[in-house]
Amino acid sequence: MHSLIRDIFLRHFKGEILNKLDDSAILAKISEKYTVSFTTDSYTVNPLFFPGGDIGKLAVCGTVNDISVTGAEPLFLSCSVIVEEGFETAALEKVAESMSKTAKQAGVEVVTGDFKVVEKGKMDRLFINTAALGVSEKGVETGINLIKPGDMVIINGYMGDHELAVLLARGDFSIKSDIKSDCAPLNGLIQNILRKSPGGIRFMRDPTRGGVATTLNEIAGNASFGICLYEKEIPVREESAALCEMLGFDPLYLANEGKVIIISSKEAAGGILSEMKKHRYGKNSRIIGEVVGQPSGRVILNTAAGSRRIVDMLSGSQLPRIC
Amino acid sequence: MHSLIRDIFLRHFKGEILNKLDDSAILAKISEKYTVSFTTDSYTVNPLFFPGGDIGKLAVCGTVNDISVTGAEPLFLSCSVIVEEGFETAALEKVAESMSKTAKQAGVEVVTGDFKVVEKGKMDRLFINTAALGVSEKGVETGINLIKPGDMVIINGYMGDHELAVLLARGDFSIKSDIKSDCAPLNGLIQNILRKSPGGIRFMRDPTRGGVATTLNEIAGNASFGICLYEKEIPVREESAALCEMLGFDPLYLANEGKVIIISSKEAAGGILSEMKKHRYGKNSRIIGEVVGQPSGRVILNTAAGSRRIVDMLSGSQLPRIC
Repeated sequence: MHSLIRDIFLRHFKGEILNKLDDSAILAKISEKYTVSFTTDSYTVNPLFFPGGDIGKLAVCGTVNDISVTGAEPLFLSCSVIVEEGFETAALEKVAESMSKTAKQAGVEVVTGDFKVVEKGKMDRLFINTAALGVSEKGVETGINLIKPGDMVIINGYMGDHELAVLLARGDFSIKSDIKSDCAPLNGLIQNILRKSPGGIRFMRDPTRGGVATTLNEIAGNASFGICLYEKEIPVREESAALCEMLGFDPLYLANEGKVIIISSKEAAGGILSEMKKHRYGKNSRIIGEVVGQPSGRVILNTAAGSRRIVDMLSGSQLPRIC
Repeated sequence: MHSLIRDIFLRHFKGEILNKLDDSAILAKISEKYTVSFTTDSYTVNPLFFPGGDIGKLAVCGTVNDISVTGAEPLFLSCSVIVEEGFETAALEKVAESMSKTAKQAGVEVVTGDFKVVEKGKMDRLFINTAALGVSEKGVETGINLIKPGDMVIINGYMGDHELAVLLARGDFSIKSDIKSDCAPLNGLIQNILRKSPGGIRFMRDPTRGGVATTLNEIAGNASFGICLYEKEIPVREESAALCEMLGFDPLYLANEGKVIIISSKEAAGGILSEMKKHRYGKNSRIIGEVVGQPSGRVILNTAAGSRRIVDMLSGSQLPRIC
């Protein structure tokens, strides 16, 4: 359904910028000095509150991160709330407070908003849309087209915390766990490494829905290079690995909301990694793979057991409402 | 409920820009040459298709108009769609086509998007959020603070078409009517009058939810001036007047989606009016009132019968999902 909607809308909106299919649009025309990034996301996560976050925190972090991975500094946020009639005021207060706190932490300002009410029974409690604007100085460029064999693949910590935390919070499995969503605004971390190594970063993307496997396949899919991952370097919590084993998930496909994949030049990778480790959201950063010439268009996993396997796009349906 | 949500979020997001409570945020910092306007709106209209429009056309026009009334030219649009699982592909195609056609007509480009699916029964078919960016050359300013007694109040045509068309399309009244929503992108009309009379326009706003009465009360509410309307100059279709009579509505409070209220200097009003009449969305433009010194903070109607009455903010609940 998700890709169906996307295909239908893409067919009708044939703009050059939209066709790039990045999560943010890069607008060069607005300012002489800055390149402006513009993005939007709707959040329908269920439940609204989960260990490590809530829909309000998520709606700020998700959109801030989409801007941040373009290399831009997020500045302004819009907030549009749709609420089911009769939704509890106390819960609304909690969500608003959480959004405001997260926006402050991220240093972005909520500058415009909209509020709609839908009759009871016509929607599930609360949906939030945020859109954001960010700026980067002209000349700071990243893009899949800059990636070359020999480049390094870096991630800023453990995979899968968000999706596991949300799933368990639904109570369908009656499993107790300490896993918390990794939901976090990454603009601080990303700005630090951009300052540290402005030319060394080729491309960044946040591995949300579909996880690291999907993001890397989106990067390599139409490219003249492949990506090779080292299984034993990929950071997965012991608890997450055990849960995945039990529930039949692969952590590579689990959604994250506080992670960024960075493709950097080989030379810059060490400096970027040590800079990342200084930041509260980068303590468990790792180099997890490298860009290779062959097989192009593919993501390959060098397993801990010494074999190699193809990491495909996720096939089949994804869980609804994890973000 | 609507104002409750607004109050809760405003209390938590105490930004200087948001506090102005305009429908768009005016961002001066991004560009040296341009002032950037940024706005967002979610659309939950029921039914999705109605005479004169549909949710897609509405989602483009409503947001384009919010940018346009700031004096800015809308350039870029985001489009975030939330769909109930199982929603008909054919209807989705129609909505996408309508959005695309309206965006082309308005000269705006859809540059970024998001698509979410919610389980069947957890929402009512289809909601759309659009956010937009527009630019105006620095120095072109409008604002309530520029309004002075003696200024003129202009509207670009008949009131209430949108709300009546949507209400009748719901089929609750089993009344047949030819009324079509006035849903239209007003950026062309507004840019024409800004070029014609750059210094003559004090303030513009689109009288959507709550209608002309609510918009004028929002303008005059905290001001040192009042607004006096001439009932016999206010354009209402005969058919709308008859329907309002029958259903117990006042056309002054009905939502419009292709109307703009312009407050202009007395000297510029004639030129603006004749320019408006040349445009397809301004043929029935009229001067409907003037700004007065007393009573300040009030909207007064000089009735056709020769009496005067106060036009208050709409009290009581508004109909849900008319936009």
